[in-house]
Amino acid sequence: MMKGYDVVIIGGGVIGCSVAYSLSGRGMRVAVVERAQIGAEASNAAAGLLGVQAEWDEHDPLFELARQSRALFPKVAVRLREQTGIDIGYEEKGIYRVAQTDGEAERLQYIMQWQRQTGEACELMDGTELREREPHLSSSIMSALFCPQDGHVLAPDLTKAFAHGAAALGAHIYEGTEVQRLIVENGRVTGVATTAGVFSCDKVVTAAGAWSTPFLQQPEWGTYPVKGEMVAVKSYRPLLAAPIFQDGFYLVPKRGGRILIGATKVEGSYQKHVEAGSVASLLERAASLLPDIRTAEWDGAWSGLRPQSRQQMPYIGPHPEMEGMYVCTGHYRNGILLAPVTGEHMADVIEGKEQVNLLQALVKGREQLASAN
Amino acid sequence: MMKGYDVVIIGGGVIGCSVAYSLSGRGMRVAVVERAQIGAEASNAAAGLLGVQAEWDEHDPLFELARQSRALFPKVAVRLREQTGIDIGYEEKGIYRVAQTDGEAERLQYIMQWQRQTGEACELMDGTELREREPHLSSSIMSALFCPQDGHVLAPDLTKAFAHGAAALGAHIYEGTEVQRLIVENGRVTGVATTAGVFSCDKVVTAAGAWSTPFLQQPEWGTYPVKGEMVAVKSYRPLLAAPIFQDGFYLVPKRGGRILIGATKVEGSYQKHVEAGSVASLLERAASLLPDIRTAEWDGAWSGLRPQSRQQMPYIGPHPEMEGMYVCTGHYRNGILLAPVTGEHMADVIEGKEQVNLLQALVKGREQLASAN
Amino acid sequence: MMKGYDVVIIGGGVIGCSVAYSLSGRGMRVAVVERAQIGAEASNAAAGLLGVQAEWDEHDPLFELARQSRALFPKVAVRLREQTGIDIGYEEKGIYRVAQTDGEAERLQYIMQWQRQTGEACELMDGTELREREPHLSSSIMSALFCPQDGHVLAPDLTKAFAHGAAALGAHIYEGTEVQRLIVENGRVTGVATTAGVFSCDKVVTAAGAWSTPFLQQPEWGTYPVKGEMVAVKSYRPLLAAPIFQDGFYLVPKRGGRILIGATKVEGSYQKHVEAGSVASLLERAASLLPDIRTAEWDGAWSGLRPQSRQQMPYIGPHPEMEGMYVCTGHYRNGILLAPVTGEHMADVIEGKEQVNLLQALVKGREQLASAN
Amino acid sequence: MMKGYDVVIIGGGVIGCSVAYSLSGRGMRVAVVERAQIGAEASNAAAGLLGVQAEWDEHDPLFELARQSRALFPKVAVRLREQTGIDIGYEEKGIYRVAQTDGEAERLQYIMQWQRQTGEACELMDGTELREREPHLSSSIMSALFCPQDGHVLAPDLTKAFAHGAAALGAHIYEGTEVQRLIVENGRVTGVATTAGVFSCDKVVTAAGAWSTPFLQQPEWGTYPVKGEMVAVKSYRPLLAAPIFQDGFYLVPKRGGRILIGATKVEGSYQKHVEAGSVASLLERAASLLPDIRTAEWDGAWSGLRPQSRQQMPYIGPHPEMEGMYVCTGHYRNGILLAPVTGEHMADVIEGKEQVNLLQALVKGREQLASAN
Repeated sequence: MMKGYDVVIIGGGVIGCSVAYSLSGRGMRVAVVERAQIGAEASNAAAGLLGVQAEWDEHDPLFELARQSRALFPKVAVRLREQTGIDIGYEEKGIYRVAQTDGEAERLQYIMQWQRQTGEACELMDGTELREREPHLSSSIMSALFCPQDGHVLAPDLTKAFAHGAAALGAHIYEGTEVQRLIVENGRVTGVATTAGVFSCDKVVTAAGAWSTPFLQQPEWGTYPVKGEMVAVKSYRPLLAAPIFQDGFYLVPKRGGRILIGATKVEGSYQKHVEAGSVASLLERAASLLPDIRTAEWDGAWSGLRPQSRQQMPYIGPHPEMEGMYVCTGHYRNGILLAPVTGEHMADVIEGKEQVNLLQALVKGREQLASAN
Repeated sequence: MMKGYDVVIIGGGVIGCSVAYSLSGRGMRVAVVERAQIGAEASNAAAGLLGVQAEWDEHDPLFELARQSRALFPKVAVRLREQTGIDIGYEEKGIYRVAQTDGEAERLQYIMQWQRQTGEACELMDGTELREREPHLSSSIMSALFCPQDGHVLAPDLTKAFAHGAAALGAHIYEGTEVQRLIVENGRVTGVATTAGVFSCDKVVTAAGAWSTPFLQQPEWGTYPVKGEMVAVKSYRPLLAAPIFQDGFYLVPKRGGRILIGATKVEGSYQKHVEAGSVASLLERAASLLPDIRTAEWDGAWSGLRPQSRQQMPYIGPHPEMEGMYVCTGHYRNGILLAPVTGEHMADVIEGKEQVNLLQALVKGREQLASAN
Repeated sequence: MMKGYDVVIIGGGVIGCSVAYSLSGRGMRVAVVERAQIGAEASNAAAGLLGVQAEWDEHDPLFELARQSRALFPKVAVRLREQTGIDIGYEEKGIYRVAQTDGEAERLQYIMQWQRQTGEACELMDGTELREREPHLSSSIMSALFCPQDGHVLAPDLTKAFAHGAAALGAHIYEGTEVQRLIVENGRVTGVATTAGVFSCDKVVTAAGAWSTPFLQQPEWGTYPVKGEMVAVKSYRPLLAAPIFQDGFYLVPKRGGRILIGATKVEGSYQKHVEAGSVASLLERAASLLPDIRTAEWDGAWSGLRPQSRQQMPYIGPHPEMEGMYVCTGHYRNGILLAPVTGEHMADVIEGKEQVNLLQALVKGREQLASAN
Repeated sequence: MMKGYDVVIIGGGVIGCSVAYSLSGRGMRVAVVERAQIGAEASNAAAGLLGVQAEWDEHDPLFELARQSRALFPKVAVRLREQTGIDIGYEEKGIYRVAQTDGEAERLQYIMQWQRQTGEACELMDGTELREREPHLSSSIMSALFCPQDGHVLAPDLTKAFAHGAAALGAHIYEGTEVQRLIVENGRVTGVATTAGVFSCDKVVTAAGAWSTPFLQQPEWGTYPVKGEMVAVKSYRPLLAAPIFQDGFYLVPKRGGRILIGATKVEGSYQKHVEAGSVASLLERAASLLPDIRTAEWDGAWSGLRPQSRQQMPYIGPHPEMEGMYVCTGHYRNGILLAPVTGEHMADVIEGKEQVNLLQALVKGREQLASAN
């Protein structure tokens, strides 16, 4: 079997599907090659926070990219609903970043300052004011930074919508199909050999998350998994209107009365089991912020393997050494948030519209930041 | 435990939840008492067709009610999305009622005529024209009546959205709670004894679908189940844009590439198993309309027990003999379609705004229709 | 539809199925009428402990019955495997009742004494000795009473095996079928009206667990639910060989590396949801006995509604007032353990072989015990 | 992380787990490296037929191996139950190979003859005699060959039992762990690099089923998938006592009233979806043998990817070119049946007890057979 495509994308997570969607929308013939099912790994496990402000401690280059991506969501949500019938659950009710200690409260001050300098709105409030809006929160919360532009989406629905949106625009989705090796001719990637046959193509995009390393073929590159374990509860009684974020930990209210609680960070393991001790500690910490968690209904536990890059920065751009190879991976905790901008940027690059190499820009920006500090 | 409510609703299906949503929106204190989970029976099993025109063979009183209800969906969809975050999957791309025999084709002519007289748009087309719009349909389809105002929703999501919408407006949802008996004082229903204690109330609404009989306490009334078995397939390749209806049988495209195929009619059994023979025959019939069904991916089988009333007509109104008791049941195949109008009408009746007894109007209308023929 | 049976059994839990199995084995025509599926409630949720000695604090009449029933398991296991192919997972490796406080340790002494007087073997050991056998247990365990005759089974498999064993012997199993009312003629029960029609019969057995009250029709009788919430973990590394019991709490190792952890006691609610707080506290308590629970893999949570009788004693015998009605319910935490003896005893009673009314014997025995103390 | 083992086994299917069990039983330190979960692929999908006689058309070398393996099951079943608590569902009630045409009936004669010459018992009977034993079978069945020594097991339980049996004997099971590459030093395999780190070892066994090719590194070797789709129905009424086999198609009665129906053969695809058309045709064919299938309860559909070798023969033996590498793969439809003998033989080879190379013997035997014909 020999099939010809403009672009073959390795990996059917949210990043690969977003790239497929952007490329298909520009008329390219695209194949997504996914070894399991669309969204089967980190994408379906994610809480879907669009926490540009709530989750950023410092003003770094990634912050700018995150702002751009967040700004794309309102239109993406409408368009995907029209094209695929799938509602991505986009909510823009803001996120509260909360403090339970003096140190945390001071940090909120600092964050508010630099974010306002970037032009982003945010608002500091004390615990009493917070509980007027979210009356079920614990009195142990001293203050909160409210980031009204932040929001959240349903991560599995976003991924599925990108895939079906791409398919509606002509892309081919190959589930249950593994890439066995790249086909390289005269130093240029010209196709992939898969378990469903050989696909020839002009360009290959590696978007394989924590499984990207074998396709990058460069010692200092590569991704590794950081497992995030999560639990969920549910309740018909509304307990929370907007997400609560605190130092890597969060509570995210979802439709149907669900509250997602996450996430742990376990480096270096591809084993997706959830440890019983993590279940207990996530519930304890959640209850310290929202005591009624204890009487809410248990609704399950799961985990995802978020892809961290060795350079601690997403790779988004042409591969520096392999012609015809493009790389979109290493988004770690920001895959959902950065999916729209990654897809659009990569389509620009592949179309040749975009001169800037985003990856280089990110690395350079970070270096400048480091030297400035 | 003693709780006081304005209205207690027996049954957490789409009808009970719609009534709860309408009543809560008008400021009443409402409890929904559901023995299993919200939507657990016929509501979650339904295909969600809003086939007012495609499914109606004759102009009868129910047709008028169905039109009214269909007209409510656009606003209901928007409001529920805002209040609950749940998208009910409302699609208004029309439905095709198809003919594979001369007899069926003649019937389409007749239906088009009377429907146009009622002011409804509909359009007859031959098979070639149909396949221009839906290219995967079988060449054995001779003609189709296109009903552009018809549509469909996701039945489980509609039910859940009504329940969470009611809860957001203050209603209490008691899952896992059975009504053991009505409490009647001086000929008036004043509460219900449940497995979660006694609830006193001003009014009780019976919306228990195929399980309503014990609460109606009148020999000629009652509901019985008509089991509908269904199967589903899925595909990334788009196979169908709008639902196909043919004499009680249908194919309904849903988000995520799913196509629902249904339904059988098995009278009188509360046993919800799907017979293997039904699976095979549903698939065969579906493939006779849409041959690519055969290569689509199998996606499961299930059934629902649709409540038929002894009078073959939904009961929507005050109980004729028990003061304080209201009845909303027996919607048979039209529970999803009629849910919005049932909720609003029942709220009018309970508020005393509505003088007309919808049940009587329906029965009277049907009698007039019968005598006219 | 009119079907004639010798005995109709209301309820397809472990008790109803055991009675059906015993009666069918004696040649009677039997129907089991189950409103959901076989074992759907408390039976499938149970941990399956056969903790005759480990769970009994005092020598009461029920202890004697429990001993008899435990003694039946070896043969029952072999017979059901032959007849149905189902292995009930019978394990007779004993149970350890453990003490973490001086008070608990003293209690173990007392229990050992009276149990040895009844002729039962049991052995007291200190923590060191215990950990030689079960090396992963916490050093906080001071001592343990080892009850070598105790064991456990897989509760869902036992229930299913009784049902299929009965069916293989000719019994009819009606799932998805509710009993709507008893048919009583001249003061004698002569059948049941169900959602699958009327079944006439000579005798009716009520074995409906926490849903038995409506069929007992006697003010002082009745059952109510005591919810037990449970969690499970799993591990390929063997962590525990035999069950650990401590004051109503237990860890039970099951095939496939699972460990069941239970159970809470929540009175009076039919709502089967598991509270998030229960998940956390069950895991914490389990880890205080077996610290490696924390790193084991989370494997789910569920609950069951165990039927407690108003007299805190199982009802096993003819109904004192309704001729033709027999009662087997209220087994609370001992349904699995007592199922074999309940089935055999009830078959004896129904055949007229058994003069003794077990229910009266139990009540009388308890009164004697009370007056002796 | 650096771990040392005697043997690392790539693949946690029934073959890999059987090898692990045999090696652990002989005191070796073993690791099983499985990229998903134990049994996740073909092993859990299999019907578990031990159809040595019913499935063999000709007396070939594999028949001898299959006889040996079948003879091991009674003891394996007992031992695994004792060591792991898992009952593998071993049933030795024989298999009926049936004929619906004259051609099929003649073939049964031929098979009976050569099998009796090998010393195996088998019995030819006409349709009437067959239906005395299996009264629900279709009258269209003309005759049957009864193979009383054949039987069946529960394939998922066998796989799980081997894994837990190995773990109980000290083996380490690494789920969620992929082998990234072999470590070869001086032409000898000395370990594997996995997603859970590097494991050094004396010997590596490749038992990766349809995913074995990358580890075999020899052009003419390799395995490819042959997808088998299956469906199941269930019934409390006993419909079938022993398996029915007909030319690659079978009905297998399992505990709990299930009947497995399979299987299709789809070559070359790793996509595990079940096609809707396969569901319909499997049910139709099953109903032509056992008409009551139509009214039985639908119980699901699934598929497995059976590993076929390029030489159409299982590979069981040392790798001909890579020192330290052993190969157990390509068992196609006979993985369950051949698992015990494969494990024992491989352990003999690895211990150096076995001089004969089973792979060479198989290939040689087949060549002799070919030249003789």
